This record gives sequence, C-alpha cells and structure tokens, in this order.
Amino acid sequence: MSTRERILDVSLALFNTEGEVVQSAVDIANALDMSPGNLYYHFKGKEPIIEALFDRFEEEMTIILNGADSNVRSVEDNWIFAYIILEEIYDFRFFYRNLGDLMARYPSLATRFRKILAMKRRAVIALLRGQEQRGVVHIDQRLQTPLVDQMVSTLTFWLSLDLIEGGDRAGPQLIHDTVLQFMLLVVPYMGELGFDVLNEMLERHALLSQPQA
Amino acid sequence: MSTRERILDVSLALFNTEGEVVQSAVDIANALDMSPGNLYYHFKGKEPIIEALFDRFEEEMTIILNGADSNVRSVEDNWIFAYIILEEIYDFRFFYRNLGDLMARYPSLATRFRKILAMKRRAVIALLRGQEQRGVVHIDQRLQTPLVDQMVSTLTFWLSLDLIEGGDRAGPQLIHDTVLQFMLLVVPYMGELGFDVLNEMLERHALLSQPQA
Repeated sequence: MSTRERILDVSLALFNTEGEVVQSAVDIANALDMSPGNLYYHFKGKEPIIEALFDRFEEEMTIILNGADSNVRSVEDNWIFAYIILEEIYDFRFFYRNLGDLMARYPSLATRFRKILAMKRRAVIALLRGQEQRGVVHIDQRLQTPLVDQMVSTLTFWLSLDLIEGGDRAGPQLIHDTVLQFMLLVVPYMGELGFDVLNEMLERHALLSQPQA
Repeated sequence: MSTRERILDVSLALFNTEGEVVQSAVDIANALDMSPGNLYYHFKGKEPIIEALFDRFEEEMTIILNGADSNVRSVEDNWIFAYIILEEIYDFRFFYRNLGDLMARYPSLATRFRKILAMKRRAVIALLRGQEQRGVVHIDQRLQTPLVDQMVSTLTFWLSLDLIEGGDRAGPQLIHDTVLQFMLLVVPYMGELGFDVLNEMLERHALLSQPQA
C-alpha cells in the first residue's frame, strides 16, 4: 500500500470515529506516526485529504448507483442493492453525519454531493420502473415523485436522524433497520402481493437483527 | 416591546437570514444599534440568546404538538395541522438547517431537541390513530412504526434537504410542497377513498402554488 493510500485510510478511520471537525493535519500525522512535514509532502493540509476521500466515495458510489438499471431484477435484488448503497455510505459516514456544515465549509464538495444526490434519485426511479414493468408495484403516477423524494431522503438522512436521536445502535443494526425502512416504503403499492413480501422482509430483518454469538 | 424581546427578535431574524455560525454578539449589537456593553447587560453572549430563542420555540411547539390529539378531526384538520407545524419550524429555521452541527456546539439543546422530536412522534401517532378510528386509513400494524418514522423525518429534514439540494424555492412554496409530501405519505393506506383525497390535495396544492399577483 502506498503512503498516500495509508494516509487516506487512517484519515477516513479518524474522521468516522472521532469526527472530522475536531481533527487537524497534525492529529492525522500523529495517528500515522509520521512527521507533519512528511504528511505535507503528500497532502497540503486537511482539505486535500477530504477531497481525495470524496474522490474515492464518488467513484464507488457512481459505479454502484449506475448499476441500478441493469443489476436489479427482483425484490431480492432490490434488498441487496439497498444494502450495498447503505454500506458504501456507512464506510464514508463522516460525510453524511453533518452534511450542511461540511458543505458550508467545503463548497466544492457541495456541487459534487448534489450530483451524487441526483444519481441516487435516478437509481431509485430505475428501481421503481423495473418493479412496475415486472408488475410487482402499481404506483399512481402522481404519487411517484413524492415516493422517490421519500426514498432518496431515507438514503440521505438516516445517519443524521440516528445522530440527532442520540442513537446507540451499532452500525450493522442501523443498516439492517434502514434497509427495512427503505424497502417498506414500496410495500403499500404492491397490492395483495405486499402481504407476503412484508412477511418475508420482517422475517429476514428479525433474523439479521439477532445478537451475534 | 421590552429591550430583551427586541434583542431576541432581531437575533432570530439575523440567524435565519444570515446563518447563526457567522454571527457574533457584536454583530447582533450592531444590528440593534446598541453598544456591546448594553447587549451584555441583557444577555451574557450569543449562547444565552440562542437558549432564550429555543425556550420560545419549545414553548410554542409544545402547545402545537399537544393539540394533535384533540384538535384534529378530519383530513382537512390534518392538512392545517401540518401547516401549523411547518410554519412554526420555519419561523425558527436556523435551528433546523444544520441540526447536527448546532447540537454538537450546544449540547444542552440536543437533549431538549430530542424531547421535541419525541413530541412530534407522539403527535403523528395521534393523527394516525384518529384517522384509523374514523375509518379513513387502515394500516397494517407492522407498517405503522416505519410510517411514523417517515413522517417524523419529513417534518425534521425538509429544510436540510432543501439546503443540500441548493433549493431556490421561497419559504411559502417550500412549506406548500412539504405539507403535500407529508400528507401523501398516508394516501396509500386510504384504499378507495385515497383516490378522491389525492385529487383534492393536488388541486389545493396547485392552487396554493400559483404565483402571487
């Protein structure tokens, strides 16, 4: 692993666990057991580190979200897709915990974050269209945009909500709960089928939520 | 109006329009055409001003939210109730624009904000229970908590979402759109009736959204 990659990995871990605001370039150098001068040789301060982390996040998220159209063929696929998105966001959770503040401090990220939001929206629309074409859901056209808004919001604010509620759920449990929340949004549009899908989802969620041995 | 009230009114307007982070006690004194020493006589800095504004917000919000049980008797009442909540939040919008950051900086507010969140949740549950008792909605019991979560999230993150999306809607339009978003969440649980309610809601929303002369 290159020094540059190691700096990014350690910075990401620090930002995620300790919060980004309170970390300085010197803190990062200390955590790496590296002189601030050596760190500076690779990154000219904290901002370029954050931008490089956003590059990674953006690249991975783009690949994931662009797959919504071709890779999701069933309710099962939908469920897995929701996991993949939420786990990716969780890996870069410091971006999401305090979105407004982060964007105010790094305006260049705000524009790029909006593009990711727009990609999320397109992916959710593709998911719903696929389910409609397979006859799984029937959505009054006038309810589609509000439903998409709600699904995109859930994918965006789940970490803020947990933070504000003073949540004490561990990451994996929070992800299980949010996947369920996301999936249940579509159940009311499934008609009779919804009853079976609901049962299946709740069973799976209960199974995944069991305390690990 | 007392000097104390005038200080609070001007501070609220400043925080809402210019942002709270960038305002200092001296900025507030300047906006009031008052010496910093005179301001200090009334409030010992910015933090007690913010706390006094939160006192106001909390008091008004408590009255509004506690009325959900007794004052809401129809879909129409529900709609009006959503307006009242959103307009109250809009009056104190600086609290909501950057929740995570604000709570990190003023930990005493975090606990109090959580209580408001819990009140919102109880109010939404009361609204749904009322609609169920009147036979307007039928909600599978297992879908109730996720629906409540979604409604509470909408009432909490609408301003953050608009901020992140770089929204250019004026306040009243943003409120009209969010009331519709909130109300539409329940439509899929209304059965046949939902169709008429949906038509009515969309008509009313279109009417309210018309550009003012």
